Amino acid sequence: MRKPIPMADTPHMHNDILFTLFVVFVAAQVGGEIAQRLKLPSVVGEITAGCVIGPSLLGWLTVEQIAPGTALDVLAEIGVILLLFSVGLETRLEDLKKVGAIAFLVGVIGVFVPFLMGSVWAHGNGFDWDRSMFVAAAFVATSAGITARVLQELHALQRIESKVILGAAVIDDVLAMLLLGVVVSMQGGGAFSVSHLLLVLAGAIGFIAVIGWGGTRVMRWNSTWLDKPKGAQSPLMIVLALCLGLAWVSTLFGLAAIIGAFLAGMIASETRQREALEHKTTPLLALLVPFFFVVTGSKIDLHELASAEALWMLGIVTLIAVISKFIGGWLGSIKLGPHSATIVGVGMVPRGEVGIVVATLGLAAGVFDNRIYAIIVAMSLLTSVITPPILAWLLKRPDTRENRGDDEEHPEVETHT
Amino acid sequence: MRKPIPMADTPHMHNDILFTLFVVFVAAQVGGEIAQRLKLPSVVGEITAGCVIGPSLLGWLTVEQIAPGTALDVLAEIGVILLLFSVGLETRLEDLKKVGAIAFLVGVIGVFVPFLMGSVWAHGNGFDWDRSMFVAAAFVATSAGITARVLQELHALQRIESKVILGAAVIDDVLAMLLLGVVVSMQGGGAFSVSHLLLVLAGAIGFIAVIGWGGTRVMRWNSTWLDKPKGAQSPLMIVLALCLGLAWVSTLFGLAAIIGAFLAGMIASETRQREALEHKTTPLLALLVPFFFVVTGSKIDLHELASAEALWMLGIVTLIAVISKFIGGWLGSIKLGPHSATIVGVGMVPRGEVGIVVATLGLAAGVFDNRIYAIIVAMSLLTSVITPPILAWLLKRPDTRENRGDDEEHPEVETHT
Repeated sequence: MRKPIPMADTPHMHNDILFTLFVVFVAAQVGGEIAQRLKLPSVVGEITAGCVIGPSLLGWLTVEQIAPGTALDVLAEIGVILLLFSVGLETRLEDLKKVGAIAFLVGVIGVFVPFLMGSVWAHGNGFDWDRSMFVAAAFVATSAGITARVLQELHALQRIESKVILGAAVIDDVLAMLLLGVVVSMQGGGAFSVSHLLLVLAGAIGFIAVIGWGGTRVMRWNSTWLDKPKGAQSPLMIVLALCLGLAWVSTLFGLAAIIGAFLAGMIASETRQREALEHKTTPLLALLVPFFFVVTGSKIDLHELASAEALWMLGIVTLIAVISKFIGGWLGSIKLGPHSATIVGVGMVPRGEVGIVVATLGLAAGVFDNRIYAIIVAMSLLTSVITPPILAWLLKRPDTRENRGDDEEHPEVETHT
Repeated sequence: MRKPIPMADTPHMHNDILFTLFVVFVAAQVGGEIAQRLKLPSVVGEITAGCVIGPSLLGWLTVEQIAPGTALDVLAEIGVILLLFSVGLETRLEDLKKVGAIAFLVGVIGVFVPFLMGSVWAHGNGFDWDRSMFVAAAFVATSAGITARVLQELHALQRIESKVILGAAVIDDVLAMLLLGVVVSMQGGGAFSVSHLLLVLAGAIGFIAVIGWGGTRVMRWNSTWLDKPKGAQSPLMIVLALCLGLAWVSTLFGLAAIIGAFLAGMIASETRQREALEHKTTPLLALLVPFFFVVTGSKIDLHELASAEALWMLGIVTLIAVISKFIGGWLGSIKLGPHSATIVGVGMVPRGEVGIVVATLGLAAGVFDNRIYAIIVAMSLLTSVITPPILAWLLKRPDTRENRGDDEEHPEVETHT
């Protein structure tokens, strides 16, 4: 709606990109708001908003605008880097130990079962084994962010099941990211090579161990230098530089940028500045994360889902994703009793960022086509939509005896959100 | 320093852009740190860092990477939009009235004299009158941000001179932005037309009046809806959407995006969320503003300054900028007595964002060449470097009688930083 003032050729900075930034941001807010009113996580609304304004519906975002390397794509990447950084900031190496054996079992089995079932399904649909494992990587990761947000909305963060879910989600995230690094690297050579795989594995594990374990130790040993840096630099600045730096370095090791960002967050969580940093990261997430979800949603090609065959496949994929994750969570936490195990199993179901990232990487690398991409993103969306009502219903049932008993056995457990 | 792991063709997201983001951010921090240790505003260090890593020295940023519309350019633009938004957030319409007649005089004369002297100088150097006025617009605006930061570092924010400087800097900013909008629009037609100028003027003033005055009134009348928005949206989200939206709309009126952002900040400063918003804007500035200053600095072409003639011109331009602004500030505040008037005059000298924005717009629009661009940016830099030591020396001298007297005459004056 241009004003009739005659200033057609004024040399003004890209008002096209300004319009795009405005539209993407507002679309995310409107989508998030609608989702909240429908009692859904706002991420669902943000992705849907992206789908609506994207090329396959309204076309306010063109295919060119969301291509890799464009301003919008880079903003989206900064958004997801900051998101995983903030998840890392809520994660201490100690938390992984504190929630103990149960969370570890839930995490490991909860990665193994979906990965196995996903691989078998993908292979059954004509992918060779290494591509099948890539597809299966999208079935693996529980979204720590979505899960935590759902539990928070239900005021259930202090329950033992919540602690197990959050702990397992973290282990799960790390395993999924490692798996992601491995399966992505496997696509590189084309041909499969055990020595290559071992080298990639050693590189990835080495990087994660040195940065995650070593960095954490260093910070725990001495992080007072961060409390009062001399001169202009605030702790936030230093930590943001660390985040961007490790995001870049992790790509040199064949890992996704978000792994470096997550590790940077975990390192920073060991400092006395942790809470201040969490607080200061919030506005950054508010501005930039919407770009990730909207751009993500805009990449869903609805035409690819507009056939009975594709919808049938989406149904199957979602069913496999839900059942496999539920089985993993349930088996891992059965020691808590069947009711609690059910809560944990359901709580692990939401996929999120990581599944979508796998889908994005897979599409960019040509591992699979637009239809599989659309199906994987839609599956990540659906699992996040299905879970909250079921979880709410389960959590409203009164606590069982064994649940309270276990709570006392783990007095040291602290929620890390 | 790539690791020898064989993963050459792994489909990883743009690690080039990740490296660039990291380098730009770290360069800004290092530059800022060095500047702080040299007792200079960190903005000086950030611009210098950009110059060092840019195409004319190290070449870590290429000419292609900082071209208009690239990811880095858009990040820089978001940075400056947020910066001016935060300046707006520190500015209430009431503040403009509170500091009263003196600040108004300082603001107006402090715009008029540099604009006049700048125009005459530019015309004397071969520019036609409307291009001369464009160049002169870069002489006009005192940087509210730099000035406030300098006064804060000197612990002088409570002095009457500081209040006048800050008040005048705001009026000055608004006038300069208006002037900028007008001179930019004048470039559009090529030929000069009074009716065109009047239309542009009416459009610009109308937009600023409706948004600035009207928006402020609306917020003052009722902004409780912002305190507890229903659903997912925080006040920050709503206000950021307003900021991006007005930044875009102001370009439709032929004004720079930063004017809309400034007005959005001023509107938001009327709400009860003002302090919370200022607090939440800080991390956004920390992440994004460095991109603006570094990209700005990287655009300085040092080769253009590497002649005796160019250095001579830089000397003249800086002298004109300093003297004209000093005269304006001194004349406007002479009622406070000669010592205070000297402090105000010196305090108004630092140019900053706006001067650099004018230079950037002028270069993009082809109003002037790389040499004038380099000279204007270097001048903005130099005025920010020269001022702090002189201001510190002046402020250390004991308060004069008339200064304290005037302080009592304005008991209602509140510093708005």
